[in-house]
Amino acid sequence: MALAQVDTRVGDIPGNVELVTRWTAKAAEAGASLVVFPEMTLTGYPPEDLVLRESFARASEHALVDLAASLADQGLGGMAVVVGYLAHTEGTGPAAVESMPEDDRPADANPRRGAPRNAAALLYGGDVVVRYYKRHLPNYGVFDEARYFVPGTELPVVRLHGIDVALTVCEDLWVEGGPCGVAGQAGVDLVVSPNASPYERAKDDLRLPLVRRRAAEARATIVYCNQVGGQDELVFDGDSMAVAPDGELLGRAPQFVEHLLTADLTIDPSSVAERRDGRIGAMTVTRHVVSEEPRPAFEARPPSVAEPLEDHEEVWRALVLGLRDFIDKNGMPSVVLGLSGGIDSAVVAALAVDALGADRVYGVGLPSKYSSEHSLADAEDLAKRTGLHYSVVPIAPMVDAYHGSVELTGVAAENLQARVRGTLLMGLSNQSGHLLLTTGNKSEVAVGYSTLYGDSAGGFAPIKDVPKTLVWELARWRNAFARDRGETEPIPANSIEKPPSAELAPGQVDTDSLPSYDELDGVIADYVDRDLGMADLLERGHDPEVVARVLRLIDAAEFKRRQSAPGTKISLKAFGRDRRLPITNRWRESLPSVREGAAQS
Amino acid sequence: MALAQVDTRVGDIPGNVELVTRWTAKAAEAGASLVVFPEMTLTGYPPEDLVLRESFARASEHALVDLAASLADQGLGGMAVVVGYLAHTEGTGPAAVESMPEDDRPADANPRRGAPRNAAALLYGGDVVVRYYKRHLPNYGVFDEARYFVPGTELPVVRLHGIDVALTVCEDLWVEGGPCGVAGQAGVDLVVSPNASPYERAKDDLRLPLVRRRAAEARATIVYCNQVGGQDELVFDGDSMAVAPDGELLGRAPQFVEHLLTADLTIDPSSVAERRDGRIGAMTVTRHVVSEEPRPAFEARPPSVAEPLEDHEEVWRALVLGLRDFIDKNGMPSVVLGLSGGIDSAVVAALAVDALGADRVYGVGLPSKYSSEHSLADAEDLAKRTGLHYSVVPIAPMVDAYHGSVELTGVAAENLQARVRGTLLMGLSNQSGHLLLTTGNKSEVAVGYSTLYGDSAGGFAPIKDVPKTLVWELARWRNAFARDRGETEPIPANSIEKPPSAELAPGQVDTDSLPSYDELDGVIADYVDRDLGMADLLERGHDPEVVARVLRLIDAAEFKRRQSAPGTKISLKAFGRDRRLPITNRWRESLPSVREGAAQS
Repeated sequence: MALAQVDTRVGDIPGNVELVTRWTAKAAEAGASLVVFPEMTLTGYPPEDLVLRESFARASEHALVDLAASLADQGLGGMAVVVGYLAHTEGTGPAAVESMPEDDRPADANPRRGAPRNAAALLYGGDVVVRYYKRHLPNYGVFDEARYFVPGTELPVVRLHGIDVALTVCEDLWVEGGPCGVAGQAGVDLVVSPNASPYERAKDDLRLPLVRRRAAEARATIVYCNQVGGQDELVFDGDSMAVAPDGELLGRAPQFVEHLLTADLTIDPSSVAERRDGRIGAMTVTRHVVSEEPRPAFEARPPSVAEPLEDHEEVWRALVLGLRDFIDKNGMPSVVLGLSGGIDSAVVAALAVDALGADRVYGVGLPSKYSSEHSLADAEDLAKRTGLHYSVVPIAPMVDAYHGSVELTGVAAENLQARVRGTLLMGLSNQSGHLLLTTGNKSEVAVGYSTLYGDSAGGFAPIKDVPKTLVWELARWRNAFARDRGETEPIPANSIEKPPSAELAPGQVDTDSLPSYDELDGVIADYVDRDLGMADLLERGHDPEVVARVLRLIDAAEFKRRQSAPGTKISLKAFGRDRRLPITNRWRESLPSVREGAAQS
Repeated sequence: MALAQVDTRVGDIPGNVELVTRWTAKAAEAGASLVVFPEMTLTGYPPEDLVLRESFARASEHALVDLAASLADQGLGGMAVVVGYLAHTEGTGPAAVESMPEDDRPADANPRRGAPRNAAALLYGGDVVVRYYKRHLPNYGVFDEARYFVPGTELPVVRLHGIDVALTVCEDLWVEGGPCGVAGQAGVDLVVSPNASPYERAKDDLRLPLVRRRAAEARATIVYCNQVGGQDELVFDGDSMAVAPDGELLGRAPQFVEHLLTADLTIDPSSVAERRDGRIGAMTVTRHVVSEEPRPAFEARPPSVAEPLEDHEEVWRALVLGLRDFIDKNGMPSVVLGLSGGIDSAVVAALAVDALGADRVYGVGLPSKYSSEHSLADAEDLAKRTGLHYSVVPIAPMVDAYHGSVELTGVAAENLQARVRGTLLMGLSNQSGHLLLTTGNKSEVAVGYSTLYGDSAGGFAPIKDVPKTLVWELARWRNAFARDRGETEPIPANSIEKPPSAELAPGQVDTDSLPSYDELDGVIADYVDRDLGMADLLERGHDPEVVARVLRLIDAAEFKRRQSAPGTKISLKAFGRDRRLPITNRWRESLPSVREGAAQS
């Protein structure tokens, strides 16, 4: 049995078909008789509103049928292949939906033309043997599946070499009493689960216990295959695994790399007491036979179990992969960024060099009259350490030209400097085809401590979801990682140690405008990631004045965040797809008329 | 009976409570015994992820109870008031969800803390008499309600002055066999329906037939109250109405204004043959009594029926209201925009003057060496006609300063000019507190014919969803409207008549880079609004070369659109909340390997 933990491309059906063919051949070479691919393999995940385009959905259906035939043509027909795809029922849509069983129908007026389904199919001998339609459609956090799909009600079980295999998809595994429970009552030997489960810090700590609970519920081995790679703001970490009904880990793939995980499963069909079909709970179990003949007995090799990564390395590799896939999948040749000598641009530069190689990274020093001496020296030091291309353009002539034409003072004058830098960097981007990287971190994005069209300009924001305190930790970790391997530390010690400053006014430091980053990040974690209200924040010991100030800033900055570049998500609530707030919005946790109204009297 | 078509504010619970109190008093003055407010009156709609914040949901629950008491304190306890609110079940969330009937439970692993509901309540005599939980949760287009709410299964019916009133909410009305069907089987006299139904061109043509179908299904009069006002990209047009079971229109409110619609309903309870409660279909009908005593007989006044607006006036007023509410609800004192002498900036300026008054609008001419003579003259003419504040800042000194520091040619040099303008306008915005308006139209936004951080800079884009051909039509309509009223035409004829040009290079016109706007807008309507694929586009007679070129541009511009300002939605698929595509995305309608693959052989 093999798990193909691959990096698909959204919308690239021919490319993904080619990927499946190539990895199926690999699995066959490794002696597997079953190979499982991730969720929606043929379309990539998440395809978002492409699902609503009928030509796309039809192309996915056709590609599935063709793939089955072409695998057989290439001598791979004896391999059972489980792939995810987008299913589409031909015919006018509302009719297709109306012909469904009642509890299968969506409960709103959305026509869902062609009744699209998030589906998985088992291919064998040139044919599509069965199609499974995902039952539980996640619609929270980054997921919008109720927008796109209609749920399935059928659980197909395929007998393969005398072993009964049930198909499920992703979220089905997270619901107790869902398809795994049905499989447990029906009696099966193996449950396969294609997944597209995005990375979040420490999420890998949740997955193994979850899969164990479901394997116990299904009374069967679970084969969990997750995709790997970056897709806009999401990064998928892989971490595919196989788990026996008694909880034994039969194999686990490494994170953040494409990987073929093979596991020798020794399954004894006689351990399943009863095998049923027909209606079980809300689902209908169907049985299908591919082959009764068991595979010859073999000596199972010891399981291949990758260790999960340490926290900082895990985050670093998530950011590197998210950035690399955004740049490469969008066909960008190179990136450019402003180097201030500060910690944020240093870390982004180091990430970019790790993701793309130094030769595809262009750093530009953009000193002003407020830049300290060390700024340029630290930027130059970074360039030398990492080997990226480096140039310097002082901004004074442009800044002076604006001041000659319009009167700009105070914050308007500070923002002007940032916008001159943004305009210069975008000019270089347009002239040479580099993508501009934004260097803002999550703390800054949260409170809007940045200039629209200035330092926030850019097509991708690699550390958009990394709080400032974690930026420092990552810098120290990356340098230590280099030291341990006898390599040059990429990030200048001075960039890590000096007090952070925007350097837009004489002697300016961040703490002029913001609380300490320890305090700020603490409030962000509780208010943004945990969605706590004012009373809970105070109960957790945050300083009331800091809380009031930070909440006011976070609420007001929605406006800026709505116009900012995408960036790799690593937390529960990144500022992006999974946190949607109105811009026009009068709710303030601190409004006394709300918190202390008559309701509490 | 009265319908209070009000403009609520998202998140402003105390303000919305005050609004309800004020309009309830108005309804009482008008002699009504029942007043119906729009969906989620107390929180505003849509509150998006505020729903997930427990402190917010609790505040909504408390405000409801307090409102009932305070209405009675103010002598309004004899009025039955139907308000929408956000319901929240205290206690740990998963437990709250698990205690629900099975078919009421969400089918995913989303914990939905506190089991939030989109709810409506009937208040009477100081109490919350019944609470109705919306059954059908729309999750398509601009709606994400499956993300936020759990559906209801109970249909409460309240006897008020001997008349049985059933409560529903919005989408419930769009589903055949939904709560209106249940009400029809149960036997009721009146169905009230609080709504938040966003404006779309010609949607008012759909509403009346829909309400008529449901009134027939419910065998009862339907009272449909819709909210009015702008909320970020959405604008709600009101168009509230009351419809008798035989389809007679008993009253209709005007669009785009707050309005108290009163209608004298003469309902004969003896026409309902049977009255049931208990389980009907998937819902449980409950009966509640407020008063059996019928109201004294009265002479019904003739219905007040507003005529729907003509198409161009309707769009213009939608855009004016969307802009005004965005500016005012966000507390912005004034707006600034660049005036090029072209049609887009002229129409945006005219909209802004209609929305805010000339004194809150600042126009700036920003000529370059490529600007034609008429550009500045037309901008000045516009300023005179509308009375807005006008100033001129030539951009040459800044543009020259950049060219002195870095080499920028071709498109990079064109973009530079746009970015210098963007930086100047943002400088003025920061210096004086104006919000910068972006003047890009839908055709331009679709194909990315704009400069990031240049002409696309700004906090609100009033004509973002208006195709260029419609921009011209609106300009002509607005001038004719002025002529008809003996007022000055706001838009210079020359801005309407001259060929459109970005004026970033000598002699440049839009048709150098784009097909004619007639062709372009035709393809946008079919590809974006109707989601048609390549084959369908060609079948509809579009020029294959134009289609190939436009689709390539639209697909590639997702990147830019993700970083653009919000703008009022007027079409089925605005570029905003209701069209979500991956940036990283390889699907191209024109890929021959997809369109002409073996699947078709």
